[in-house]
Amino acid sequence: MTLYLIGVGLSDEKDITVKGLEAVKRCDVVYLEHYTSLLQCSKEDLETFYGKSITLANREQIENKSQNILDQAKEQNVAILIVGDPLSATTHINYILEAKKQNIPINIINNASVLTAVGITGLQLYKFGRITSVPFAESETPYTVIKENKQAKMHTLALLDLHPEKGEFLTIKDACVKILAIETIKKEGIFTADTEIIACARLGSDNPTIKTGNVKDIMKQSFDHAPYCIVIPGELHFMEEEVMKIWA
Amino acid sequence: MTLYLIGVGLSDEKDITVKGLEAVKRCDVVYLEHYTSLLQCSKEDLETFYGKSITLANREQIENKSQNILDQAKEQNVAILIVGDPLSATTHINYILEAKKQNIPINIINNASVLTAVGITGLQLYKFGRITSVPFAESETPYTVIKENKQAKMHTLALLDLHPEKGEFLTIKDACVKILAIETIKKEGIFTADTEIIACARLGSDNPTIKTGNVKDIMKQSFDHAPYCIVIPGELHFMEEEVMKIWA
Repeated sequence: MTLYLIGVGLSDEKDITVKGLEAVKRCDVVYLEHYTSLLQCSKEDLETFYGKSITLANREQIENKSQNILDQAKEQNVAILIVGDPLSATTHINYILEAKKQNIPINIINNASVLTAVGITGLQLYKFGRITSVPFAESETPYTVIKENKQAKMHTLALLDLHPEKGEFLTIKDACVKILAIETIKKEGIFTADTEIIACARLGSDNPTIKTGNVKDIMKQSFDHAPYCIVIPGELHFMEEEVMKIWA
Repeated sequence: MTLYLIGVGLSDEKDITVKGLEAVKRCDVVYLEHYTSLLQCSKEDLETFYGKSITLANREQIENKSQNILDQAKEQNVAILIVGDPLSATTHINYILEAKKQNIPINIINNASVLTAVGITGLQLYKFGRITSVPFAESETPYTVIKENKQAKMHTLALLDLHPEKGEFLTIKDACVKILAIETIKKEGIFTADTEIIACARLGSDNPTIKTGNVKDIMKQSFDHAPYCIVIPGELHFMEEEVMKIWA
């Protein structure tokens, strides 16, 4: 039978593609990977719209016990639903490798990802450098990536950490505090209270919150529900500056 | 009324999202932007499946005469269908800006993009640096971008130029010839006959062609229909190397 990795997009039950929906309907077992990102609808909304019962799968099941899912796919049609695009998170590549090795037909159904939905900010995607994430744990990585990208005049997309299964979401304010703390040590002027950034919530949904301003002001704003990200612009083209003004 | 920018995905009429399809059905006028990329189905396939008549729109209509489309959207529901994600190409950002200025409701419906579909190669998306494209015209830009990304140990995605409306597609072989020609002048060892690359056709479709090998060997291979891209790896993680072997 076949293993389907199906992107369900960024917001709700209708963001699945027609091809993806047809594949879900062919499946005997449907998992929803719900630890790398977050939809704006419930599992029940998906179940009602897809007409299928869905099993929530945590990191343990998807990563450490992937062989269980692969074994199921030898006998039945199995879908793993993934928020956004199925291959944007690094954790799912392993299924391609193992499916090929074990001769299990695998079918990837792509969908929207925050990596391109960030285009709504007005910043040009080909001017983004390396992507980073801001973890709950202490880390200098976001600071280093922002610095390297700025030196190359490129924009940085920083995704904020989340544990949806525990209801924990690193807020935009907390992420700023974390990066400012590194600035306090490094003192390289990469990310200060005066740095102009774009802060976003729920990109790819019908009601994203997108705000531009300096870090100090952004930290005072509210952004409603997760997921969150921050964009730190590199060198701005005048057209990018003009579009950014929409979100001021 | 509303202006809809709707991504139709990368391959055929069923790659539109359910939300996108519902929006198309609400529209009085439907344009298909068909000069920045290429689907694997015909306009007629889209029309039959969507149940709508579609007008092909060229660069002139979408970019220079955008006010005509904006004016239409003041009176009617208007959709611009865009291959891939509506905001991955820089040319469509202007509609967000103008719609906001002119107080026209605008609705963006995201979809898959080659920028994330390239994840199927096994290379991790967060390790990609700046994206580049290889134009029909002479240009040192791809070489420079590959060099800068390699220095930062990052992968490069190079999209190959195309003029779908004229049936012209820069082939993988021709793109390699162009970059090798720059290498001959610069002699920096960035892209030689021995450089290992991944060459891809029709990413995001049901039958992509993906091949790894050195440039000399890749240039001898056939890749069937466009669109094409080349990935020049930076530093490879062992997991990336393992997945890459699938495509050897």
